[in-house]
Amino acid sequence: MAQTRKVYFNGRYVEESEARVSIFDSALMYGDMCFEMTRTYKHKPFRLRHHLERLYAGLKIAEIDCGLTVDDMEKATYDLLEHNKECFPEDMDIQIMHNVSRGPLPIYESVFEHGLEPTVTINTWPLITHMAGSADKYEQGIHSVIVAQQSVPARILDPKIKNRSRMFYQIANLQAERLEPGASALLTDENGFITEGTGNNFFIVKNGELYTPEGRNILRGVSRGAVIDLAKELGIPCHETNLETYDVNAADEAFITSTTVFAVPVTRFNFNPVGDGKVGPVVKSITDAFSEQVGIDIVAQAKQYKNDLESFNKAN
Amino acid sequence: MAQTRKVYFNGRYVEESEARVSIFDSALMYGDMCFEMTRTYKHKPFRLRHHLERLYAGLKIAEIDCGLTVDDMEKATYDLLEHNKECFPEDMDIQIMHNVSRGPLPIYESVFEHGLEPTVTINTWPLITHMAGSADKYEQGIHSVIVAQQSVPARILDPKIKNRSRMFYQIANLQAERLEPGASALLTDENGFITEGTGNNFFIVKNGELYTPEGRNILRGVSRGAVIDLAKELGIPCHETNLETYDVNAADEAFITSTTVFAVPVTRFNFNPVGDGKVGPVVKSITDAFSEQVGIDIVAQAKQYKNDLESFNKAN
Amino acid sequence: MAQTRKVYFNGRYVEESEARVSIFDSALMYGDMCFEMTRTYKHKPFRLRHHLERLYAGLKIAEIDCGLTVDDMEKATYDLLEHNKECFPEDMDIQIMHNVSRGPLPIYESVFEHGLEPTVTINTWPLITHMAGSADKYEQGIHSVIVAQQSVPARILDPKIKNRSRMFYQIANLQAERLEPGASALLTDENGFITEGTGNNFFIVKNGELYTPEGRNILRGVSRGAVIDLAKELGIPCHETNLETYDVNAADEAFITSTTVFAVPVTRFNFNPVGDGKVGPVVKSITDAFSEQVGIDIVAQAKQYKNDLESFNKAN
Amino acid sequence: MAQTRKVYFNGRYVEESEARVSIFDSALMYGDMCFEMTRTYKHKPFRLRHHLERLYAGLKIAEIDCGLTVDDMEKATYDLLEHNKECFPEDMDIQIMHNVSRGPLPIYESVFEHGLEPTVTINTWPLITHMAGSADKYEQGIHSVIVAQQSVPARILDPKIKNRSRMFYQIANLQAERLEPGASALLTDENGFITEGTGNNFFIVKNGELYTPEGRNILRGVSRGAVIDLAKELGIPCHETNLETYDVNAADEAFITSTTVFAVPVTRFNFNPVGDGKVGPVVKSITDAFSEQVGIDIVAQAKQYKNDLESFNKAN
Amino acid sequence: MAQTRKVYFNGRYVEESEARVSIFDSALMYGDMCFEMTRTYKHKPFRLRHHLERLYAGLKIAEIDCGLTVDDMEKATYDLLEHNKECFPEDMDIQIMHNVSRGPLPIYESVFEHGLEPTVTINTWPLITHMAGSADKYEQGIHSVIVAQQSVPARILDPKIKNRSRMFYQIANLQAERLEPGASALLTDENGFITEGTGNNFFIVKNGELYTPEGRNILRGVSRGAVIDLAKELGIPCHETNLETYDVNAADEAFITSTTVFAVPVTRFNFNPVGDGKVGPVVKSITDAFSEQVGIDIVAQAKQYKNDLESFNKAN
Amino acid sequence: MAQTRKVYFNGRYVEESEARVSIFDSALMYGDMCFEMTRTYKHKPFRLRHHLERLYAGLKIAEIDCGLTVDDMEKATYDLLEHNKECFPEDMDIQIMHNVSRGPLPIYESVFEHGLEPTVTINTWPLITHMAGSADKYEQGIHSVIVAQQSVPARILDPKIKNRSRMFYQIANLQAERLEPGASALLTDENGFITEGTGNNFFIVKNGELYTPEGRNILRGVSRGAVIDLAKELGIPCHETNLETYDVNAADEAFITSTTVFAVPVTRFNFNPVGDGKVGPVVKSITDAFSEQVGIDIVAQAKQYKNDLESFNKAN
Repeated sequence: MAQTRKVYFNGRYVEESEARVSIFDSALMYGDMCFEMTRTYKHKPFRLRHHLERLYAGLKIAEIDCGLTVDDMEKATYDLLEHNKECFPEDMDIQIMHNVSRGPLPIYESVFEHGLEPTVTINTWPLITHMAGSADKYEQGIHSVIVAQQSVPARILDPKIKNRSRMFYQIANLQAERLEPGASALLTDENGFITEGTGNNFFIVKNGELYTPEGRNILRGVSRGAVIDLAKELGIPCHETNLETYDVNAADEAFITSTTVFAVPVTRFNFNPVGDGKVGPVVKSITDAFSEQVGIDIVAQAKQYKNDLESFNKAN
Repeated sequence: MAQTRKVYFNGRYVEESEARVSIFDSALMYGDMCFEMTRTYKHKPFRLRHHLERLYAGLKIAEIDCGLTVDDMEKATYDLLEHNKECFPEDMDIQIMHNVSRGPLPIYESVFEHGLEPTVTINTWPLITHMAGSADKYEQGIHSVIVAQQSVPARILDPKIKNRSRMFYQIANLQAERLEPGASALLTDENGFITEGTGNNFFIVKNGELYTPEGRNILRGVSRGAVIDLAKELGIPCHETNLETYDVNAADEAFITSTTVFAVPVTRFNFNPVGDGKVGPVVKSITDAFSEQVGIDIVAQAKQYKNDLESFNKAN
Repeated sequence: MAQTRKVYFNGRYVEESEARVSIFDSALMYGDMCFEMTRTYKHKPFRLRHHLERLYAGLKIAEIDCGLTVDDMEKATYDLLEHNKECFPEDMDIQIMHNVSRGPLPIYESVFEHGLEPTVTINTWPLITHMAGSADKYEQGIHSVIVAQQSVPARILDPKIKNRSRMFYQIANLQAERLEPGASALLTDENGFITEGTGNNFFIVKNGELYTPEGRNILRGVSRGAVIDLAKELGIPCHETNLETYDVNAADEAFITSTTVFAVPVTRFNFNPVGDGKVGPVVKSITDAFSEQVGIDIVAQAKQYKNDLESFNKAN
Repeated sequence: MAQTRKVYFNGRYVEESEARVSIFDSALMYGDMCFEMTRTYKHKPFRLRHHLERLYAGLKIAEIDCGLTVDDMEKATYDLLEHNKECFPEDMDIQIMHNVSRGPLPIYESVFEHGLEPTVTINTWPLITHMAGSADKYEQGIHSVIVAQQSVPARILDPKIKNRSRMFYQIANLQAERLEPGASALLTDENGFITEGTGNNFFIVKNGELYTPEGRNILRGVSRGAVIDLAKELGIPCHETNLETYDVNAADEAFITSTTVFAVPVTRFNFNPVGDGKVGPVVKSITDAFSEQVGIDIVAQAKQYKNDLESFNKAN
Repeated sequence: MAQTRKVYFNGRYVEESEARVSIFDSALMYGDMCFEMTRTYKHKPFRLRHHLERLYAGLKIAEIDCGLTVDDMEKATYDLLEHNKECFPEDMDIQIMHNVSRGPLPIYESVFEHGLEPTVTINTWPLITHMAGSADKYEQGIHSVIVAQQSVPARILDPKIKNRSRMFYQIANLQAERLEPGASALLTDENGFITEGTGNNFFIVKNGELYTPEGRNILRGVSRGAVIDLAKELGIPCHETNLETYDVNAADEAFITSTTVFAVPVTRFNFNPVGDGKVGPVVKSITDAFSEQVGIDIVAQAKQYKNDLESFNKAN
Repeated sequence: MAQTRKVYFNGRYVEESEARVSIFDSALMYGDMCFEMTRTYKHKPFRLRHHLERLYAGLKIAEIDCGLTVDDMEKATYDLLEHNKECFPEDMDIQIMHNVSRGPLPIYESVFEHGLEPTVTINTWPLITHMAGSADKYEQGIHSVIVAQQSVPARILDPKIKNRSRMFYQIANLQAERLEPGASALLTDENGFITEGTGNNFFIVKNGELYTPEGRNILRGVSRGAVIDLAKELGIPCHETNLETYDVNAADEAFITSTTVFAVPVTRFNFNPVGDGKVGPVVKSITDAFSEQVGIDIVAQAKQYKNDLESFNKAN
């Protein structure tokens, strides 16, 4: 590939290796940054507007004026995709990341030749690296473990604002890894209710009905929303409720959702099998319905990417 | 000034404008970075070793191996000071900032030509900009206001680990500014106990004795420690205790402490005067004792910097 | 007006200026009093029985036997209205306030010539003063701000018992006023869920559906109930749920309800516009439906009262 | 007695039966009133200034400007005592009660011929009725029971502000009475720590040392302070600490303190004897020391008042 | 009766007096035992499989492998019933109790000749003693009182696991007895929500609809489930919700459910009548429907047992 | 050994294998039992009276009257030791366990030929099995890990009452074992403060001073008390305080205490070394002082027992 991927950086296009934020920026000084992860299906961003509106909801509460309207941001995203389009083969879907911070702290203004301005970046990334790792998980499921690390309560810092003050996610990840290498961290709140994974939402299936934590101490994920919508279409009752570890132990199925992989079955929970320990029919039917909706068999895509990964890595 | 200040960046020296962290770094993805702020008195770092040991205590808990021993880090700091020494006139003291993150996320490894490594930066900054703004405050005191934003409880993310997941600090700052422009935010915990400001510790004086919040939901500041030590030397009883807004309302004096300014009187609290609303004798005697200890009249220094600021700005 | 308004006071009628409670009464010693606010529409009390049953529910829990059955109390109310009827022009609606306390503390019995008895008062008040102030708000909306003061948890003192131990309401009012003169205080509970204003309930509208806090840490207002009933009739889904500040930030509309003004739009929330910052269609349609139900255009009435206020004041 | 006791009421002297507060006053509308109880020993108020300073601390936080300085209030108190002096025989000590509210709500201004002003009352009361009831308790002790009603947390409404929003005190009293007629209610906070009785503070004695709840979720009583001071003088270590029911079960002695009765032994706790179930030596020695300090044998005084009560009642 | 009842004890049949667990067993050392109570109707166990599945859900979470599959356990239960059948007259229904512990602590292994093995017991008991005591309660109802003892939060030890670490139940029982002899204890959680009785679930009826606490800090009783199922069949809406004492005070009816007695009306609550203080129509219709379902008039059965008790006692 | 150890069981002596409690006993039905573990040094019980007084403190709160005075219980203990003395070689010290429950539930009275009576057992056990396992730990230290399982808050069920409702201890043990086989569980409370291990107390050493959790959500262990006493004698300051994981990470030493082993060094904490990872001087000096006090080198004893274990096992 002759061309390299560019990153949108405050109105300019820069190389990925140049997509760097000053140590004097509020983003680094305070973890004071909002962001979004969107992905494409067949190069078409999925619910991009929904993602951006969530981004702007967070910016409003954080009182960050990024200088762009949501329409501007949407246009900048499509422009970037267009600009980078030769970097992505036709069958390679794309992760789009938006980052917005308040910009450098005023006291360090002299470092910045353009003066103080919010920091806005948009970047694109081939999904091969993310999805290849999930190829086997669609069929075998993952092991989800409750970790000691709890979610920050929404009354302190609202996880519904997708923000970058999430060092506790990394601590949770380390705790899960310690319990069993490769296990996926699942957090709870101060009441012991399940909240979310470190970058994904959580569902269980019981007697053919879906249950997922109330949209309180969690990010209300776009894929979570997509599952809720699909369940409605498929006639599967879906309850947003207080979910406890007891409920997962008694569940027939469980799965997590996130933008890149959509839905991955959880076949073990806290070292016990979930239901019969196999991928269940409900998560399958939801995944199938979603694949149909987006026009891509996402499980097949993951497998293909897994196969392609070695050669692609060389190309990049 | 012919030479420009350099920043230590993973073993290399770079320009301040190049001291930037990749958007793929865990520091930006998760606010997953530990840091320290040290300052010099007469170009001699104050309790540098204490700062670095606190840094390494945090790294140990966060399970970040930065690749340097604490001795290495100390040496790198002195080397940088030496390297930049021509950038700082004899009477210009220096802020030293250390930043350490886990480094880029593995999935984005291909962006980094040097491969994955933790991110370690050390930078220096003339204190003129920080201290000039405090010159008047030493004599008039500041207005400290309790904001609605609460501290993140230590059981969730321990503030004793000096970390960069502190977006809530910026929200607290906005709330204080809204209550009264220029007011200084003071946070409480879930019990209503006072914790700390957004980058400073808090003390009150009552009947000639010092009271400061227990070292629980706060950063145990180095300057806080210096005050506790000085109080001992001066024969002033100092209590680490549960401090409530009621206590501040009933206090004779109050002040905040931080590395750059040491101790700044709080003469108003929640729109009421503290004591008689003037700078009190205890904070004065502690500040005097500290000035003597470090060999610099810190109030005089602040005033001088305030005067120098305009010309210095032009020079930089 | 030749006649003056009388107040029912333990079976007697007294002048308003004589409607005073002894400093030895449990009402003043402990804030130990239950009360109700009812209003008339066209001189007909709205849901008086509902108000009185709520009053008696509180008295039962507080173990206050006021000496009257709920039927007695209802009759006394109508008798008072009849007695005072010449004090209220035909177009002037009335606020009716009921107060019931346990009576004087036994230790001070000697002060009371009639001996110890519960204190029961009923008084009437022209709504002109209350509603005139709301006339503009129906069209411009109000600014609702979250204050630092939290609601007393129901497990400590149940707000569903409409009681007079609410000094924290006045503190909340002062905090709101400080944030912005004229702003309306909105409280939260210890989980960060929105509870109520200081004398009103809170609703939001999202995608054409109503959401209001669960009837837990709030007074379950009669007007709140009326809105829930009307929503049902109008086919507007209405959810009693855990409501967070995030939800209000994302809402299309918001409004408060209280007995005197029924429903007042909230067009700003925490210094941001709610939705497009204008009075929305849902609150309008509910207000219209209510006006029809009670046979009075309440917005028009408020405007009229505003106009009448000056002359009325002179007459009183 | 020819003369009757007068009450100071906003600068005027009124009869006790006329010491009444309007139902439109914030005191009654919101329990929005601060107060103090002081008593005399040999007609000399004990720590009056201390009481008044606490009153003004509360008023400051509640943002009530009562129109009098603390000096004015002190003078008004002494003037009232002088005015009423013939109402109190030489051997009859006096309870002095101060009440301050924000005054009538502005919306009801028309009721008040003097316009809106804060409500300030001072009244005096012969201690015979209070102390006669305690005469036997000094020698037999009382039964203290933990009730289900919890204290309002200080972060919600600070009990250190002596306020009138304390309906929960009456509920606690009813619960104690239900557990055993005559039992004295003892409250706990949300952590299960003992706080205070409904109008008194709590101490235990263990191995000759005193323990009392930290000054957090309690009123820091003046008598409590007097005990702490006396303990110091007597060489009895006194700890302000987290006190639990377990500690009382394991205590050698317990007692409560309040202004009128100073210190009353608790000889039963939750239906078990405290220590050997008799009045212990430590409370006795503190009571003796206090009696000496104030120049009155308070136990003897209580007994005398008990004897005098019947005849006195006739006289009043 | 010639034969005596036997108890299943780790695969053997022993006399009831021999059904004893070693003091070295984890059951006694730690209250580390799961259990179930099932009853028969006409000698047919009601929802035995449901009970056993709940038992195994608890064992899975407690990581106790009892050595039997749920099928084995079911068979062992029926075998025991068969073995003991001559001990139960045709009209005498049976309580079946299952107990499973982890077995003796390894350090005490030498005491046990059979080595270490989990402890599994199944025993049967004539319901006469349990139900006779309820005979009058079906018609008069019971007095339910909120006690100070709170439920252990599910996040600490999940009550949904039916376990034997419930000393606090006995403390709650003592507290209820102290409030009024014969009163039935009702617990709340840390939010003040009603949870359950000490061995029973709680329902209220309001406006013809059923309300019961969410299945969170409670055992999700089998009889509770049966009521929910019956309500569905009878067309009575049933809500699992946050239930507060206020709601019970305002309820039309209330009742408790447990395995042995099914549903017993609560006609008094906290010393006040529930509704009109009489057994209400909803609990009656549910009890009737249940009687029909199980083929036994359970109220009549209780009365008969009450009559039979004396003679039966002699026979046993 | 010709004779076998006997167990005191309600006044009789029974074989250890017969020391069993009925499944109808409140001890098994509710985990409703208080207990103590005492040990001998040179066959002399260490602080037996202290243990028994703690036992009776718990019984008093749990309202269990065991039928014996504390003197009776003490005598019964010495009698049992005398009775069993031939079972213990001179150099074999003894664990003494007391168990007291409320006895069988009244409803099952017919099972018990002696009628209803509290269950009281005292048993003795050679310490060889407990201490042999600790022999290496005195020199190498153990790995202490914070587990997700939290302590039951004292306000719910007070751990200061040494009771048998501690199933959560076994769950904590399983969690520790999962983190690393052989690791020792350390619990925290709802504030994140360290409480205790599952059967031991916790200390750290920092700058030559001792810190241990406040006696709140813990059992106040007799060995803990012995360490506090010894520290006083040795001139080592010892603080009862709020201890957090951060403090342990920053500690120089740590150790646990329990009756059987007295004090065992903790050389690893949460997978990091404590201090330099070796047994420190303070725990050593305290252990030495204790050995001197009790006249036994407890480390040497443990080693000897380890050597003896195999032969002893055969003998038993």
